[in-house]
Amino acid sequence: MTARAVEPVLGPRQDSALPARIARSAAATTGAGLRTEDFPDWLEGRRWAHRFQVDRIPFAELDGWFFEQGTGNLVHRSGRFFSVEGLHVTTGDGSPGAWHQPVIKQPEVGILGILVKEFDGVLHFLMQAKMEPGNPNLLQLSPTVQATRSNYTKVHKGADVKYIEYFVSPGRGRVLADVLQSEHGSWFLHKSNRNMIVEAVGDVPLYDDFCWLTLGQIAELLHRDNVVNMDSRTVLACAPFPDDTAGALHSDTELLSWFTAERSRHDVRAERVPLAGLPGWRRGEKAIEHEDGRYFDVVAVNVQAGSREVAGWTQPLFEPVGLGVTAFLTRTIGGVLHLLAHARVEGGFLDTVELGPTVQYTPGNYAHLVGTDRPPFLDLVLGADPARIRYEAVHSEEGGRFLNAESRYLVVEADADQAPLDPPPGYRWVTPAQLTALVRHGHYVNVQGRSLLACLNAMRTYT
Amino acid sequence: MTARAVEPVLGPRQDSALPARIARSAAATTGAGLRTEDFPDWLEGRRWAHRFQVDRIPFAELDGWFFEQGTGNLVHRSGRFFSVEGLHVTTGDGSPGAWHQPVIKQPEVGILGILVKEFDGVLHFLMQAKMEPGNPNLLQLSPTVQATRSNYTKVHKGADVKYIEYFVSPGRGRVLADVLQSEHGSWFLHKSNRNMIVEAVGDVPLYDDFCWLTLGQIAELLHRDNVVNMDSRTVLACAPFPDDTAGALHSDTELLSWFTAERSRHDVRAERVPLAGLPGWRRGEKAIEHEDGRYFDVVAVNVQAGSREVAGWTQPLFEPVGLGVTAFLTRTIGGVLHLLAHARVEGGFLDTVELGPTVQYTPGNYAHLVGTDRPPFLDLVLGADPARIRYEAVHSEEGGRFLNAESRYLVVEADADQAPLDPPPGYRWVTPAQLTALVRHGHYVNVQGRSLLACLNAMRTYT
Repeated sequence: MTARAVEPVLGPRQDSALPARIARSAAATTGAGLRTEDFPDWLEGRRWAHRFQVDRIPFAELDGWFFEQGTGNLVHRSGRFFSVEGLHVTTGDGSPGAWHQPVIKQPEVGILGILVKEFDGVLHFLMQAKMEPGNPNLLQLSPTVQATRSNYTKVHKGADVKYIEYFVSPGRGRVLADVLQSEHGSWFLHKSNRNMIVEAVGDVPLYDDFCWLTLGQIAELLHRDNVVNMDSRTVLACAPFPDDTAGALHSDTELLSWFTAERSRHDVRAERVPLAGLPGWRRGEKAIEHEDGRYFDVVAVNVQAGSREVAGWTQPLFEPVGLGVTAFLTRTIGGVLHLLAHARVEGGFLDTVELGPTVQYTPGNYAHLVGTDRPPFLDLVLGADPARIRYEAVHSEEGGRFLNAESRYLVVEADADQAPLDPPPGYRWVTPAQLTALVRHGHYVNVQGRSLLACLNAMRTYT
Repeated sequence: MTARAVEPVLGPRQDSALPARIARSAAATTGAGLRTEDFPDWLEGRRWAHRFQVDRIPFAELDGWFFEQGTGNLVHRSGRFFSVEGLHVTTGDGSPGAWHQPVIKQPEVGILGILVKEFDGVLHFLMQAKMEPGNPNLLQLSPTVQATRSNYTKVHKGADVKYIEYFVSPGRGRVLADVLQSEHGSWFLHKSNRNMIVEAVGDVPLYDDFCWLTLGQIAELLHRDNVVNMDSRTVLACAPFPDDTAGALHSDTELLSWFTAERSRHDVRAERVPLAGLPGWRRGEKAIEHEDGRYFDVVAVNVQAGSREVAGWTQPLFEPVGLGVTAFLTRTIGGVLHLLAHARVEGGFLDTVELGPTVQYTPGNYAHLVGTDRPPFLDLVLGADPARIRYEAVHSEEGGRFLNAESRYLVVEADADQAPLDPPPGYRWVTPAQLTALVRHGHYVNVQGRSLLACLNAMRTYT
């Protein structure tokens, strides 16, 4: 008797039930776990349980980090983690210019993963209270897993990464989203992380520092300053939110064609150069700074842990100069909310441009510019009538690499005079649903754009 | 009286009628223009009208090209066109190895565009008989426009590129597809071209060397050797063919997740190095060759034109050693055709891996390997029962850069023993419809995979 192959049954290519399940979680303002009103106390409790202290130190006090002979690059003796090097960027047609800057080189792809599970028929997201030395308030809400490859492959004998098995072992969960997304192209060279949402199969243990929240609860926290960290925001942006809108100003093909044209017209060349002697930058004992005091400093910190379980460490961080402003201008066109996206050149992008918010600047860097030299739409956002501000919160960028990198994240309603349907070159009206479709793939929407997409989803009313 | 803004009417995000229009053209085996049976004579006529001659020359006879002092890179005195440099590739987890090779560096994004137009209610594609010095038969059928940026911006005072206005000026046509796609990652460093299909608005003049063909006619030509060139094949693969299949073995999210994991697990680093002294390669008077006679040679040719209108020129070309084999294994799973895709590492890819055919090798390069060192599935394809071969034709790669770069393109039906549903790491069953969806975006499917996708579309029966 020979075994007979059983013909497999094919499944549908799309999970048509998922967007409605996402919407149900977004509509749930109370969950099966922590109550939103108890969240601040819970987070404060986690803060006291760990009691970290972060202090600035001179570069000479870094342990294991040193300026490499010859290049002057700031590297770790293990050759791992990341390095700070120099970058020379030249841009051709479309956005003429050239500059030098320090840049973080971290070739490893990490995992930013949120584990989800239904309780009482509603999807809950497993979030973690996590300390990062660059966060202004140290502890913020991060994804279930936020791990570099060195972390989770235990190259460095660190503590186990909790829940990592759901993201690296097939069969432990069902993948709802999984995509390589870029991080800050102005500070990282070609950095991307794997953004994952995985639905757990079976029971999930709940460890200290973790809590289950609905999307509705997270939406409320996204309206508070410095609570939901960048890694959470970018993963949340990858959730397949439902599209209940009727069409768009531009079809998807027109949008992709415009994006392809933007990518083609920019000729961006980014070349790694030694950090030593980088034109326009000077290295002191405690910081590498731009000669005009603009952009960011490279600094060093010492992290001390209050409890004995966790060791302390030292590391470099990038510290931006001043509070950023990151904003989408919106208009309701034909009854559908549209956002004004900007095809931005950032020197560290893998491929020339990605779509970002309408405005993404640190105003202080442009204070010396007047008239048409001012970045488009910046003054419109800075001077926006409060009645036109639909969303505002201060969020910080990845606290493992950036120190006090805070921005005001805004959604500002514009009118036809301020933001015409036919905007300047490099700008295009898109719907949130179109951005959500693009975010299924990497290198279309930058990390600030994804952050604001998470905030936009948090603004919507779900039923 | 103030002007009142007219609220625009939104369109649908998808053009739901387009796939059926593509299918109608694919079902049309006769067109409004050239008859398929007259095509060989027409092509022969164009060949005689131009009478090009291509001869191999020593590097010393190249005009304008020289080996740069120091690096030994082969460059043009204008600093434009392309250069031949060295590449050092190391791969980490997933596919251990390291090698050196010459590589073509051509940072400009060109346009490969096909203009389409309805005649008698059927879409016709405007194809061009175009000479390229590396084609074994010189003249092949190319897209309407096949132009580097230097070409079409007239930096080099060449003749005007016919029909270019449809691809660079808004309003001359309606874009049906527009995406940046990679080219040969084994020979080019980070090369991509814009693949466009544009439907003309209004009358289109028909110039010498051009003809209107339906997709059904082109499908017949795709079954002949060396007629439809690579540039045409990759653009044709971007056409939104209809999906009339029921589901797939893996959902789109599962497929994207697997692809993301493949991209994450490979750690490919490609570093530009001088061509001079490239380990394993030696430069002679007429060729740069690998010391074992494998892979490819870098050679030089002189192109002479028979007619006075076109000037001659000299240029380097890459000449692969031996005939390649490029094949998809297929299985009908749950009633739906599936292809076994391979996540391939190629040193010149912008991002680690792209999906290629099951088999993509030049067998001669592996003739010295036995047993498990042999590339997976290669011997299965080489020894395939002719009754299992569903498609076979010899096609050549881009004749502007590659000399006699011919491959047997095959579609071979496999059974469960030869190709299990759960294939080795790096391989995955996908449907043609899933590949078509991925090809809307860049850097998912490599140029050989796209070529075979065009052939697969040409095999189907449309009604």
